[in-house]
Amino acid sequence: MIAIDVMGGDNAPQVVLKGALEAAKNYIPIALHGPEDVIVPWLEHHAPGWQTLNITIHPSSQIVAMDEDPVFAVRKKTDSSLVKAVASVATGSAQAVLSAGNSGALMVASALIIGRQQGVERPAIAGFLPVQHGTVLALDLGANTECRPHHLLQFAQLGTQYLKGSMGIEQPRVSLLSNGHEAGKGSILVKEAYQLLASAPGLNFVGNTEPAAIFAHKTDIVVCDGFSGNVLLKTMEAVIEMTASIFPSQAAVLEEKYHQKAPGGALLLGIKGTVIVCHGNADAKTIENAISFAWKISHKTLKNKENISQLY
Amino acid sequence: MIAIDVMGGDNAPQVVLKGALEAAKNYIPIALHGPEDVIVPWLEHHAPGWQTLNITIHPSSQIVAMDEDPVFAVRKKTDSSLVKAVASVATGSAQAVLSAGNSGALMVASALIIGRQQGVERPAIAGFLPVQHGTVLALDLGANTECRPHHLLQFAQLGTQYLKGSMGIEQPRVSLLSNGHEAGKGSILVKEAYQLLASAPGLNFVGNTEPAAIFAHKTDIVVCDGFSGNVLLKTMEAVIEMTASIFPSQAAVLEEKYHQKAPGGALLLGIKGTVIVCHGNADAKTIENAISFAWKISHKTLKNKENISQLY
Repeated sequence: MIAIDVMGGDNAPQVVLKGALEAAKNYIPIALHGPEDVIVPWLEHHAPGWQTLNITIHPSSQIVAMDEDPVFAVRKKTDSSLVKAVASVATGSAQAVLSAGNSGALMVASALIIGRQQGVERPAIAGFLPVQHGTVLALDLGANTECRPHHLLQFAQLGTQYLKGSMGIEQPRVSLLSNGHEAGKGSILVKEAYQLLASAPGLNFVGNTEPAAIFAHKTDIVVCDGFSGNVLLKTMEAVIEMTASIFPSQAAVLEEKYHQKAPGGALLLGIKGTVIVCHGNADAKTIENAISFAWKISHKTLKNKENISQLY
Repeated sequence: MIAIDVMGGDNAPQVVLKGALEAAKNYIPIALHGPEDVIVPWLEHHAPGWQTLNITIHPSSQIVAMDEDPVFAVRKKTDSSLVKAVASVATGSAQAVLSAGNSGALMVASALIIGRQQGVERPAIAGFLPVQHGTVLALDLGANTECRPHHLLQFAQLGTQYLKGSMGIEQPRVSLLSNGHEAGKGSILVKEAYQLLASAPGLNFVGNTEPAAIFAHKTDIVVCDGFSGNVLLKTMEAVIEMTASIFPSQAAVLEEKYHQKAPGGALLLGIKGTVIVCHGNADAKTIENAISFAWKISHKTLKNKENISQLY
């Protein structure tokens, strides 16, 4: 069962419901969290006979706005679609939760309600970048704009744990995003994190990496603070979009190429449950892909949510 | 006269000489700095009759290596092609200097020998990003990995001064690179710089900007610390290259499209002279474009190298 925050996102609830409906048609069990008087009429109109699909409706009366203070929202809006969807993972009634809403609130709710893995100070948003011949897991993509060196070490550990556990990659290569591949390059943060990653047991640390090396797939995991990671992710997306506009005849091919590889949503790592963060502006296809991704991984990841300190 | 550091760059001296030769064929006066016994045989072999072109040779015996400590290199290697080329701008015998070599050493040499504009604490590397319908000036692209808020303010002022003086843009829009366009978004650095830019006289500050808005040309200048700027620039380059490899038949069109817009080199702003920084891995065509860019702007910029504090 995948719990969906129907009211989260710039184009909610329409695109979220559309994405969820398509996923349900592909036999993924869906739990829709949101106001019944929004969800039911939409389903009646767009999918008459939806009752034959594996869709359940979980009424909630409140909505967390995109720009609302995360901590305040989570504490006050206990009957919101976001909080209720997250809570359903904590109780075990859903295997994963997905929201395109206020990502800060999603993080806070996940940490407070589902809980952080033991030893994890800062959960991180981890996304797969489409690169030559595969994907690279990048984290943090924006949850933590200010990081200390040991946070980057934890991101490296979380990413490694995830690729090992869910993807079966035995010794994933981990690198630090920097402005030069040489060991001495980078900000003070990167230089200090370099020392920690280089001496940490259980990590296959391959040094600093620049974007060219990331997109040439010279690493499996790239670790960075949330500010740089956000620049990396959004620059990639913006340049792909700009290039597509230069070749309108090929734009569909290009989008298909990147959509195929990218799972449509990012993971919140460091939480004792599967939490998928979608872009606020995600379209229905992206939501559908992200649900499908959540469904695939939620089975694999349950068994890997161990204490990270046991692993390193 | 454009002074060229013949020995700077991953593929020096060949690609540098080739780019310079092509520029000279386009009637740009070129001063080649480097060992005579390297330069003369190359010219004799590749351009018999080169003496009819406007090329002069300025012998130097030392080479600054790509990974050498900048301050040490500049102080010790006073007879290097890099230091000599920079010095020729200080003495007025060249209007601009170009190097694809050690960019740290180029900066240090420029600051020490040509000098910083009055009031400028940190010169910045400023480059034009090819965006929808034009270019956006981005700075800093890697000279200053650690910045304080007032450095970002100075970058905003330098960029504005440059676009006004050299490009005739009267009120260039300036924005801060951030992980969200809202005023409260960003790292601590960005939040503090936001306050400074918002209250600075003479700046057309339009707020925070994300990569999508940069590539949609919603700003003329984007200001950032050198680490984030480097990630922005290099991610853009890497994604363009990856996309070109997906459409091999269109790769030439794509490259042409971006090459046309991008001048091939970045500017060192805040220095009392025109200094062009090329990528270490620049090819001959890029060097040629950068020389041509240097030639075009060096006439316009001389008159604008005033005290920046007089302008703000």
